[in-house]
Amino acid sequence: MRGCVIIAGLGPGSDGLVTPEVRAAIDNATDIVGYIPYVRRIAPRPGLTLHESDNRVELDRATHALEMAQKGQRVVVVSSGDPGIFAMASAVFEALEAGPVEWRELDIRVLPGITAMLAAAARAGAPLGHDFCAINLSDNLKPWALIEKRLRLAAQADFAMAFYNPRSKARPEGFGRALEILKETCEPERVIVFARAVSRPDEDIRVERLTNATPDMADMQTMVLVGSSQTRIIERDGTPIIYTPRSADA
Amino acid sequence: MRGCVIIAGLGPGSDGLVTPEVRAAIDNATDIVGYIPYVRRIAPRPGLTLHESDNRVELDRATHALEMAQKGQRVVVVSSGDPGIFAMASAVFEALEAGPVEWRELDIRVLPGITAMLAAAARAGAPLGHDFCAINLSDNLKPWALIEKRLRLAAQADFAMAFYNPRSKARPEGFGRALEILKETCEPERVIVFARAVSRPDEDIRVERLTNATPDMADMQTMVLVGSSQTRIIERDGTPIIYTPRSADA
Repeated sequence: MRGCVIIAGLGPGSDGLVTPEVRAAIDNATDIVGYIPYVRRIAPRPGLTLHESDNRVELDRATHALEMAQKGQRVVVVSSGDPGIFAMASAVFEALEAGPVEWRELDIRVLPGITAMLAAAARAGAPLGHDFCAINLSDNLKPWALIEKRLRLAAQADFAMAFYNPRSKARPEGFGRALEILKETCEPERVIVFARAVSRPDEDIRVERLTNATPDMADMQTMVLVGSSQTRIIERDGTPIIYTPRSADA
Repeated sequence: MRGCVIIAGLGPGSDGLVTPEVRAAIDNATDIVGYIPYVRRIAPRPGLTLHESDNRVELDRATHALEMAQKGQRVVVVSSGDPGIFAMASAVFEALEAGPVEWRELDIRVLPGITAMLAAAARAGAPLGHDFCAINLSDNLKPWALIEKRLRLAAQADFAMAFYNPRSKARPEGFGRALEILKETCEPERVIVFARAVSRPDEDIRVERLTNATPDMADMQTMVLVGSSQTRIIERDGTPIIYTPRSADA
């Protein structure tokens, strides 16, 4: 039997955000591969083997998935959010390209998911309702200088911005430097949203003006959304609504 | 009874990409509001009124939804893809902000969906696997000069790029101008993906090098994805795999 590798996005946490297509792939799998907390979202059943692995071993995990598929197994690599956005799909293709040429004959598919940026934006209103960019603030795999260059150009383009992986224990400094660059390049009233653990029980949404934003407002569970110069706040009882209008001037 | 407006994303077309959360909102609605082809994706049932409206009347449609919710109805505004990405959520909040202050007491929620860019990227591989931007190429609501500025800055930042609404009968020229700017600012081998009607029966994925890309390769049903300078092609039988590695140099 021909094996397959399906790289599937589980969305940000709630089962209500897992697509039927992804659910069906999991139901049909022989093996699930992924980072520990994502594999633990999958219910065990007879005939299904769960392979948990630690963070930062993405290439090993990808290679393992491809090897099992080569033996005829139906492997699902699970990612949080969307697998193509700062997640496992690129790691699998890096392993594929570096591996034996026979692997290219495997059935390999990516199933999209609700990436954190979309879930966070939905909770806040529509801060990404106009042109925007997505930047991974981790400098594990790229130099900080490149992140800084992109932040400055994104501000100049007046993009709304979504920041993935803003801050971790191993990288406590980067997000503070990113905030400094934004404070240099954007007006102090710029809207910034800290969306933590979206769709999970400990969800927390915090809206600030840039001038009041501090590095401790983000952690590894936080999606940070920065508005464009046009982004607006609609005040009301409870959390305000943040949105970026569809139209813009030059 | 307190009415509500739920702005829900139906994904790019396939029912397998509609989240359970969105499905439940539709099942619980009294009224569905949206652009004709999206409303036609909803199955009629007793107790549900379907309100179809034409393109380019987004503010009227949003106002109608808010008015019905004010009367106590459970209104779902349907969008293709994700409602917060170049879709109905911003239009509803524009209408909300301009409308009577009582509307702000309504229960208003956005339910995310699989936006076209994620579905197209998944079909191609993982072209958005590193930092990227999303630009609406329609100049209906912003000057062309702003689009051009953003394209040049995005190329300078070496973002991968996702273009929504690249070309329509009413705007036949813009996409050709966008391609000219990319050809001026990026190397000729840059990868470009034309993903048409993703997840629908007439789906078509075409991969080209920038130097060979022509304006007629896109229409209103096409999502255009442009790789960064690092984006790679894995050749194999059938459609090649396009991906952007996770790491990058300065």
